[in-house]
Amino acid sequence: MPTKSFFETKDYLCGEKMERTVVMQTKEELSQIIEKYLSQTSFPDEPERLYAPILYSLQQGGKRLRPLLVMLACNIFSDETAPALPCAAAVEVFHNFTLLHDDIMDNAPMRRGKPSVYKKWNQNVAILSGDAMMIYSYMLLNQAPAGLVPQILERFNRMAMQVCEGQQYDMDFENRDDVPIEEYMKMIELKTSVLLAASAEIGAIIGGASEEDCRKLYRFAIELGLAFQVQDDLLDSYGDSSFGKPIGGDIVEGKKTFLMINALSKATAQERAELRSLPGDAAVSREEKIRRVKAIYERCGVKTMAENQVKRYMARAEEILDSLSVAPERLTEMKSLVAGLLGRNK
Amino acid sequence: MPTKSFFETKDYLCGEKMERTVVMQTKEELSQIIEKYLSQTSFPDEPERLYAPILYSLQQGGKRLRPLLVMLACNIFSDETAPALPCAAAVEVFHNFTLLHDDIMDNAPMRRGKPSVYKKWNQNVAILSGDAMMIYSYMLLNQAPAGLVPQILERFNRMAMQVCEGQQYDMDFENRDDVPIEEYMKMIELKTSVLLAASAEIGAIIGGASEEDCRKLYRFAIELGLAFQVQDDLLDSYGDSSFGKPIGGDIVEGKKTFLMINALSKATAQERAELRSLPGDAAVSREEKIRRVKAIYERCGVKTMAENQVKRYMARAEEILDSLSVAPERLTEMKSLVAGLLGRNK
Repeated sequence: MPTKSFFETKDYLCGEKMERTVVMQTKEELSQIIEKYLSQTSFPDEPERLYAPILYSLQQGGKRLRPLLVMLACNIFSDETAPALPCAAAVEVFHNFTLLHDDIMDNAPMRRGKPSVYKKWNQNVAILSGDAMMIYSYMLLNQAPAGLVPQILERFNRMAMQVCEGQQYDMDFENRDDVPIEEYMKMIELKTSVLLAASAEIGAIIGGASEEDCRKLYRFAIELGLAFQVQDDLLDSYGDSSFGKPIGGDIVEGKKTFLMINALSKATAQERAELRSLPGDAAVSREEKIRRVKAIYERCGVKTMAENQVKRYMARAEEILDSLSVAPERLTEMKSLVAGLLGRNK
Repeated sequence: MPTKSFFETKDYLCGEKMERTVVMQTKEELSQIIEKYLSQTSFPDEPERLYAPILYSLQQGGKRLRPLLVMLACNIFSDETAPALPCAAAVEVFHNFTLLHDDIMDNAPMRRGKPSVYKKWNQNVAILSGDAMMIYSYMLLNQAPAGLVPQILERFNRMAMQVCEGQQYDMDFENRDDVPIEEYMKMIELKTSVLLAASAEIGAIIGGASEEDCRKLYRFAIELGLAFQVQDDLLDSYGDSSFGKPIGGDIVEGKKTFLMINALSKATAQERAELRSLPGDAAVSREEKIRRVKAIYERCGVKTMAENQVKRYMARAEEILDSLSVAPERLTEMKSLVAGLLGRNK
């Protein structure tokens, strides 16, 4: 056991400083910078069961969407993105913390194709390492320019509390049969969108955006998150399986999704009974469950409904971007991210 | 589900402002102020299972030792203690967060004579409400004078990570038979002392103490925490049971304490075997286990050893207090707290 605290040495901060940049950066360049920064994360060797799971979690990859939003938002307003890097890492670490704890709560043994932390180690390890990850995200936040720390902390804290609210609503919904679509969308906003929104907003704050533009970036990413989630619900039933996940997982698990909740409200009484009983019906094969639920989806028109909803959220998101007080060419990379996320540049 | 976030309204901050004080306050006055501030904590009504456990936990009482250290340390250097109040609440909320998660990890169904949160609700509730409590502690910290936030956050973050390290070492020790006393004391320092130390240091920072005096307050509370823990170990075996806890709990559970670890290193081979086998021996009554372990303690002289150790830590703590660059009368209340904690003013 070392006698001096690792965190007194500040070795946990990535040593290498980013070079001063004077041009706008592509999202690929920013992604590389983020990946490099995250890969330099180091922790004390001991206690091994506290720190090893944090590195394991951060090394599983993922889209790094949240840190990219921080960097892109900063770059819209400033040529210099280096000061945003620790906060970019902070939102990614926070996101990964939520996954550690959510996986325990949701009994999810796999994450990104590997055993989740509570499965690879045990539950206590996942609880405590998750706690340490949350603390680590606050350590990174505190590397923002000092004068901005209270403001960034305020946004981050509010977001973090809302993410907890979203997770609690999500768990509450599992035991309810009557979730209206408005409540579902609010849950999604809390569980998913607010972290994207705070990421974009914090990037804008560090980039020196006006208060109004910061608020706009926040709203932009709320809409983006909602579009993303509804599209995710769509992909589960209608995506191609080369995407990684097997098709129909949500249907077989009886998950409440945008499609299911809307179908329940539009279906006939007989269809509704079928939608409710199918997931748990051991006599029906997986393929047959998916086929029958999707047939009801078609009849109720919820697929088209979801597609239109994604388009609406996207249109609003782009509208907000276009209303920012910056030259249009500063928006190129953010718009390219949005298009990529929603599969329009494949 | 409300449409506007409660945390946007700032209603979570206690509305009533403390009056400006211009004299030193007794620890009883400060305790009342802390209790009042904590009792004004309010949260949104929903999601009920996220917020109700936080209030339940904060309303269970406890000594409020950590917030009192913040306020007393601040008052040593400044007549005005009101600016320290949110940070005082923050360290108490953080402490209670650790209890929520520790109780899950340690399978402790009771806490302060009531069911612990995971027992009263369930484990998922305790995980998520605990997370929300940690976030809430950061919300409170961010109410410190804005210019001090980065500095306070830095101390708080380091402390929080060390508390996690302490908890992990504590869990690791359960599976080890060879814990040297130095490692035990280091674990105690991490798990218990650093939170007391950061509390005192943060109070001193807000009170405007010099860097040197801040460091001294930190060291003072490290010593205080160590004294307190060794005394706690002593009380478990030698206290009077009117104190609340039944005597000998540590012995029956086979817990590694200051007494047990030192006894193991001083005992004969035969006694060592007995110390190791007794806790799990179903054929021996509770009373007999306690009697036999204590007999070995006496023979090895570990009771006297522990008493002397408490005195040494105390003497160092008082020495540090006396070396502060303030008039002696500013130390009266802190010294009275110390004496009270160690049972010398009963």
